[in-house]
Amino acid sequence: MDQNPFRPPTSTVQAHEPNTLPIKWGARDPLERGPIIGTLSNPSRRNVLGAHGSQYSLNRSMAAAVGMFDPTKKPDLTDTHSTAVIGPFRQWFEPGKIVTLDPFGLDVTKTFASLIAEGYDIRPTIAATWASIRPREIRDAVLARRLKPDGEVLIREETKRKGKRPIVTYACPVTEIAIDPVWNLPEMAQRLGIGDLDLRRSLVEQSGGMYPDLVTRREIPIFLPPNGQTIVVIFGDTRKLGDPNTPVTVRVHDACVGSDVLDSDICTCRPYLALGFEECIRCAQEGGLGIIVYFEKEGRGLGSVTKLMVYNKRHRQPGGDSAAKYFWCTEMVAGFRDARFQLFMPDVLHWLGLEKIRLVSMSNDKYDAIVNSGIEVIERIELPDDRIPGGARVEIEAKKAAGYFTRGQRLNVVDLAGVRGRTFK
Amino acid sequence: MDQNPFRPPTSTVQAHEPNTLPIKWGARDPLERGPIIGTLSNPSRRNVLGAHGSQYSLNRSMAAAVGMFDPTKKPDLTDTHSTAVIGPFRQWFEPGKIVTLDPFGLDVTKTFASLIAEGYDIRPTIAATWASIRPREIRDAVLARRLKPDGEVLIREETKRKGKRPIVTYACPVTEIAIDPVWNLPEMAQRLGIGDLDLRRSLVEQSGGMYPDLVTRREIPIFLPPNGQTIVVIFGDTRKLGDPNTPVTVRVHDACVGSDVLDSDICTCRPYLALGFEECIRCAQEGGLGIIVYFEKEGRGLGSVTKLMVYNKRHRQPGGDSAAKYFWCTEMVAGFRDARFQLFMPDVLHWLGLEKIRLVSMSNDKYDAIVNSGIEVIERIELPDDRIPGGARVEIEAKKAAGYFTRGQRLNVVDLAGVRGRTFK
Repeated sequence: MDQNPFRPPTSTVQAHEPNTLPIKWGARDPLERGPIIGTLSNPSRRNVLGAHGSQYSLNRSMAAAVGMFDPTKKPDLTDTHSTAVIGPFRQWFEPGKIVTLDPFGLDVTKTFASLIAEGYDIRPTIAATWASIRPREIRDAVLARRLKPDGEVLIREETKRKGKRPIVTYACPVTEIAIDPVWNLPEMAQRLGIGDLDLRRSLVEQSGGMYPDLVTRREIPIFLPPNGQTIVVIFGDTRKLGDPNTPVTVRVHDACVGSDVLDSDICTCRPYLALGFEECIRCAQEGGLGIIVYFEKEGRGLGSVTKLMVYNKRHRQPGGDSAAKYFWCTEMVAGFRDARFQLFMPDVLHWLGLEKIRLVSMSNDKYDAIVNSGIEVIERIELPDDRIPGGARVEIEAKKAAGYFTRGQRLNVVDLAGVRGRTFK
Repeated sequence: MDQNPFRPPTSTVQAHEPNTLPIKWGARDPLERGPIIGTLSNPSRRNVLGAHGSQYSLNRSMAAAVGMFDPTKKPDLTDTHSTAVIGPFRQWFEPGKIVTLDPFGLDVTKTFASLIAEGYDIRPTIAATWASIRPREIRDAVLARRLKPDGEVLIREETKRKGKRPIVTYACPVTEIAIDPVWNLPEMAQRLGIGDLDLRRSLVEQSGGMYPDLVTRREIPIFLPPNGQTIVVIFGDTRKLGDPNTPVTVRVHDACVGSDVLDSDICTCRPYLALGFEECIRCAQEGGLGIIVYFEKEGRGLGSVTKLMVYNKRHRQPGGDSAAKYFWCTEMVAGFRDARFQLFMPDVLHWLGLEKIRLVSMSNDKYDAIVNSGIEVIERIELPDDRIPGGARVEIEAKKAAGYFTRGQRLNVVDLAGVRGRTFK
């Protein structure tokens, strides 16, 4: 092992370590592709920038600082491998198809077992497990007869209690997947239509100096950024992934704590997620697959602090919250309207081998990104009117007027100004 | 404005800019304390490390890269100010009391209006708004007669529909707050019992080089890290904050998408959050305050990828998931058991002026952190047995055996080994 395990970050002077394993992005054979080594037990073997665990890398760094663990020690990843096999699919090897995650990131303990045995500290950037979920709305859907338990995709469970009525739950066995971002910077820049160096400079400069190696070590293409984790939930048999005859329903969802966790009435997020659950269950019951992709893109990718500031501004407009001012308020506060970069979103769908889907979303940005990336959308499922909370009228009418899919009416500018919400002081 | 607006990150050579506003942490007068300037429209005026927006700073950097906005332009923050007044409270000025957020971070547009008028680009690190939330479990609690609408804290709303029964919702008007982390590194190091430079070195080295200025600019005490955002929800009249005679119920919650959003049966997270909603509503209805503090500390602060790996390992133990192996599995996979650093958690409670609370949590780590920080816990509210999902027995028995508060039985090592869950292949 290297006498000086820590390579200084201002490392333009040092050449790339001779024993670093190179990464050939897009190669079919994973050993030819090379492992992502972002671990720090032996820093001289790293072949990427950044760190595992997204924003949680800082928690780990602090744990190391107080001596909670020995950072030079390789962890034991026995028995952590996935409960499901995902891929490989042809999309994994098509140039430019997947640039924001590592298609081989799931079962590194198996795929790169030989290298791990040689001593390399290789960690997954994706994990998958089995879970039993029972979203609250599913029970309502069953009671309203929109869904029916079938004992496989949707299971009616009874928990007996002494002297009381049994508790009835409606549970769905699913595959739950977590994905850390793995950025291929030159390929991301290409998709964005800008230069690789321009992207790197902006990442460094506009963050006030996060990972200057992005610029000083620009020969390293792969970066593990602290930019959120993606969760995927799959209803149905994952062995059907990649089968062109299996119908697939997908809900693409950008996280919103206020709605997803707290059921706020100001937006349609949770209601659309709930519709996603229903449609996914139905598709899986018909022999297909239902997939929820849950991105950590709070507040249109601007984060929660900006989001709440925008809420305040919206509600202080003369006459209160207004569909006509919906996007403008965000533009004033953030400088622009949307930081979610939907053009990278389909990477997860490609990783799952999807070619043709029913899409539970009205978003034109999501639709365009998916279709432009080569996935066919055979149906777009609109959120029914009676599922839209009162305070969310402003959001949904503004979005429809701006291009959201709808079979209903799109309001013109005059009528849009008449769609109002609350007024704050 | 500086001819070269971007100060290179490897900036040991340059002295601290002469016109940088100094920060005197803990000063009573905000103008004497100084504003946090983490913005980038005029980098020479920055007086902190890091960037606004936590992990979302990267989204903004990418938006700048593609020209979505002009990063040299100051945004318009008109009408974004809080709907509620928070503080100031004596805790804001007590040395070492608040070290992971900016107590003056909420209404910077008012507090630092004079400096903003002079041209400084000062942005909030905290935002607060009004919201109407209707968590699904509240309806269940009303129907089960555990809660009763009172038209103020818990409001029964009827939405009429043509030709159908009206929709009945149970809504709570709340104050919703979002908090970006603002780290005072020397004071954090002190609370951790380590040296400031040791903390900084670990943050840089164990992240593979994130913000090397943490070490090269060690004279700068304040850092805005990409480490998650905290959400606070307050039921009741926020003007009562700081009143020692107002009873306060607090649920301290570490986020869990699998449970909070998907209602997975493997853990008690969402059920405990739901209990928190009920207790908060009840306290507010009695003239007190109910507060949920929702931390972005997924998977014990290890993140979702590690969390799901641990689930797999747990379920592959001989005989399946076992309370006796609950913590050990995490230790094997991550190297240690817990990266949540509860010792910093009370900062939010101090910011809210809390002195005495009822705590909806069984965690001994949370209790100890709160009590050691000087806040009195007059009651600890245990999760009732019938609210524990089947798959979560392993978690709760393991935690009770390890020190979690309970009026019930703590299992010994032998019996703990008998508390089993599922088995995976």
